[in-house]
Amino acid sequence: MADYLPPGVSEEVMAEALERFRQVVGSEWVFTGDDSIPYDDPYPVTNDETLYRPHGAVAPASTEEVQGIVQVANEFGIPLWPVSRGKNFAYGGAAPVLSGSIVLDLNRMNRILEVNEDFGYALLEPGVSYYDLYNYIQERGLRLWLDVPDPGWGSVVGNALDHGVGYTPYGDHFGMQCGMEVVLGTGEAVRTGMGAMPGNNTWQLFKYGFGPYVDGMFSQSNFGIVTKMGIWLMPEPPGYRPYMITFEREEDIEQVIEILRPLKVGMVIQNAATVRNLVLDAAISETKSRYYSGDGPIPDSVARDIMADQEIGMWNFCGALYGPPPVMDTLWTVIRDSFSAVPGARFYFEEDRTRRPDILIHRAETMRGIPKLTEFGFLNWNGGGGHVGFSPVSPITGADAIRQYEMVSGRVREYGFDYMGLMAIGWRDLHHVAVIVYDRNSPDERTRIDELFKILVAEAAAEGYGEYRTHIGYMDEIAATYNWNDNALMKMHEKIKDALDPNGIVAPGKSGIWPAHLRNTDSA
Amino acid sequence: MADYLPPGVSEEVMAEALERFRQVVGSEWVFTGDDSIPYDDPYPVTNDETLYRPHGAVAPASTEEVQGIVQVANEFGIPLWPVSRGKNFAYGGAAPVLSGSIVLDLNRMNRILEVNEDFGYALLEPGVSYYDLYNYIQERGLRLWLDVPDPGWGSVVGNALDHGVGYTPYGDHFGMQCGMEVVLGTGEAVRTGMGAMPGNNTWQLFKYGFGPYVDGMFSQSNFGIVTKMGIWLMPEPPGYRPYMITFEREEDIEQVIEILRPLKVGMVIQNAATVRNLVLDAAISETKSRYYSGDGPIPDSVARDIMADQEIGMWNFCGALYGPPPVMDTLWTVIRDSFSAVPGARFYFEEDRTRRPDILIHRAETMRGIPKLTEFGFLNWNGGGGHVGFSPVSPITGADAIRQYEMVSGRVREYGFDYMGLMAIGWRDLHHVAVIVYDRNSPDERTRIDELFKILVAEAAAEGYGEYRTHIGYMDEIAATYNWNDNALMKMHEKIKDALDPNGIVAPGKSGIWPAHLRNTDSA
Repeated sequence: MADYLPPGVSEEVMAEALERFRQVVGSEWVFTGDDSIPYDDPYPVTNDETLYRPHGAVAPASTEEVQGIVQVANEFGIPLWPVSRGKNFAYGGAAPVLSGSIVLDLNRMNRILEVNEDFGYALLEPGVSYYDLYNYIQERGLRLWLDVPDPGWGSVVGNALDHGVGYTPYGDHFGMQCGMEVVLGTGEAVRTGMGAMPGNNTWQLFKYGFGPYVDGMFSQSNFGIVTKMGIWLMPEPPGYRPYMITFEREEDIEQVIEILRPLKVGMVIQNAATVRNLVLDAAISETKSRYYSGDGPIPDSVARDIMADQEIGMWNFCGALYGPPPVMDTLWTVIRDSFSAVPGARFYFEEDRTRRPDILIHRAETMRGIPKLTEFGFLNWNGGGGHVGFSPVSPITGADAIRQYEMVSGRVREYGFDYMGLMAIGWRDLHHVAVIVYDRNSPDERTRIDELFKILVAEAAAEGYGEYRTHIGYMDEIAATYNWNDNALMKMHEKIKDALDPNGIVAPGKSGIWPAHLRNTDSA
Repeated sequence: MADYLPPGVSEEVMAEALERFRQVVGSEWVFTGDDSIPYDDPYPVTNDETLYRPHGAVAPASTEEVQGIVQVANEFGIPLWPVSRGKNFAYGGAAPVLSGSIVLDLNRMNRILEVNEDFGYALLEPGVSYYDLYNYIQERGLRLWLDVPDPGWGSVVGNALDHGVGYTPYGDHFGMQCGMEVVLGTGEAVRTGMGAMPGNNTWQLFKYGFGPYVDGMFSQSNFGIVTKMGIWLMPEPPGYRPYMITFEREEDIEQVIEILRPLKVGMVIQNAATVRNLVLDAAISETKSRYYSGDGPIPDSVARDIMADQEIGMWNFCGALYGPPPVMDTLWTVIRDSFSAVPGARFYFEEDRTRRPDILIHRAETMRGIPKLTEFGFLNWNGGGGHVGFSPVSPITGADAIRQYEMVSGRVREYGFDYMGLMAIGWRDLHHVAVIVYDRNSPDERTRIDELFKILVAEAAAEGYGEYRTHIGYMDEIAATYNWNDNALMKMHEKIKDALDPNGIVAPGKSGIWPAHLRNTDSA
């Protein structure tokens, strides 16, 4: 493979820097050449092979080693691309925005520093996966639940930092974050919140500390490298009852979301609720070829076959009740009565599923925080295994839901893909996540994906919908849509970037934020 | 009165700046001399009359006028001390840390820009008080509740920015904040979150936007001036049932807090629960002289007289149930059974109070978000009307509660004051708020308060307890206790301060953060 170098760094300088990295972490933890292939984007959305290519990777085992690496990086001008576990495959995996960057792989920092059952929290290093934390809790019989995103192999810390969401009442992962340790671009370690008080007893209990509350600055950011983070965990509830409601018609999404809003805002629906479309649920355990052998997206008649075959709807809402049985009974009465207004709605508890019981079983486990990889079944839908997520945020209204659905599914189908999407309802917002599955090895599909994605971003922005998270290849495009008052927010980010990381070492281009020496150039 | 000037600003320069401020806002909105007396600290904790004295005040009516003032301040080097409504009397009122500052009084920016009933939010300017917002909602019959701190005359925006707390399920005010407009120290206006996308439809619905989540940076901070803020409002629940539980012995606080923790972490207790001590509740409607004419704190025998006379306990827990009746019934059974373990615990709903029904009526209104000023009754306890709040954060454990109580009440009584305190239980932390009421006109009491306060801060820090908020006079002391790793957090704050406000115009000394030209000097 070619050795990509960052702008302004010669082969000799890089070689010297790598040697110094080896002195910090040991030579077995510096990866170059073929050893750094695992850090490439697993699902590229471009045919330009020079983009998003790391030069190599370095894997520290401690905060002190991170500081050592940052110091060397400053000395030699080497951009570092920190990843917690690098498993965010729909958004670029471990690959950097800027080719030639050294991936700062935090996988080895996988210590579970504390799990407190009485208070419900964990203090973690970034390399801890959902599986690691789950196993730790199970082995000790602690009565705590995780909140997991669909794939359980990712980093608890990394997912929260990327504003990821899950499916229990603790579904807003960053909202459950409490206390951080961060290594700045100059190498200093900072602890936030109560962690800034030596000998404190509340680092993972109280978020705000004294003075500015800065933790959010380090999320979706390149202002520092998070080396420890606290996360709140949900106490095991006295009861749990997952359910599924199916809806027959595409246009039902409008009414369903109107019904959901007051239930969610009023906390009758206690968890981060998701409505998933037909193909997304069907694809978890079946492949497209079983139903359809034609080109392009499935026609309506095939959609109806799938509905009947799998006993699912055009939209499927999975939720869960948590609490003592009388509380669950009361909430369920309200929920069932509310959705009964939708013609053709069908209600299932786990024991009611005769066909495809796995759908609700799978979601039932996710909604109680059991990490899994089942969701990745959808990658086999049409072979090729690539996928990218388009994730605009919208108000929780029926009109917005149908508008989102029509805009996105229309374009996705126009480009020859099946629409696979979900609408996740948070505290006050609707995350529409459209997953586009494509053949990662097909140059033609990559070209189409890239063209399609840019159209989706622009059309959404024109109607006031903005993405909350994105693939490394679209960070600049999306940041550019957040440009109120002549890009005032980005200009502020740039000032903070320059102040905290004057040599621009940490993750150049992350979230569209570039260090001074790479700004306004075509470096991405 | 003397005209205090900021360091390095001559009388002539100040006069010219004031003239320019008048051009921005109109001469009737610039206050100097006797007209600026209302901006002094209402409850001084020092006898040094040169401290915390504004030179004057300027009151803009719009974001554009704020920008105009900031521009003039930069030109002339005039420090501005922004206050939303300046009603935070226990923490300094509208007075600045740095004498000679011009108070930037945002009271006139009191527009309620939007209240959305479907989603439960308001978009507000900083001059909007709890009363204003409450009246707006009542006049329109909207089914939304506020979450109010004890005094209702303060600013909704300012309280959230200062990490204030209330008593409904929405008691973490900053946690309910969504979207900001901020004028930086250089005069640019920035909108955060989704507000950075022109034409967006989710500024008050989704907090994080894209990229770094920066809102928290502007809380308890001098990095910018918040000119608009979104806040989530609670939908009116289908049922509400406030209750009071009294406990007879001082030492019961240990057991009470141990019982509270799992109920609170498990969300059985739905609201921000508070346990208040005898004197704090007694003082709301009675004065000390009715019970005791001696010097110093009341003796035990008098405490017992008050308990009997007012039918309250040494500690009194007021909470509330929210939801449909079967949910409330279920939760109440758990709560009542749990606290029945405390010998002598008594349980009251509103109709059960025969003596001093006003205590529960008052708290019942607060716990449903009705703004009031009733709480200020305690200022009359021993005359003189001054009060200052000492507010350390601790874990929610019985051992910490009793330790906090003993440390603080012991010192407070040693200095001749009655202990008036509450323990407010948030998501995972216990805010211990000790209110010390003193005679603001007595130089001796001011001296004692000042000495006492510094001892409390140091003794708490030695045991790992840090304050979450403080009077302007103690910001440096408290910031200095958050000094992990050679003051790394403060050094980071200073870098951000210098980057966003290079001339150090905004609120020098706020939360212990000083601009470069005033750093490491004895300016406070």
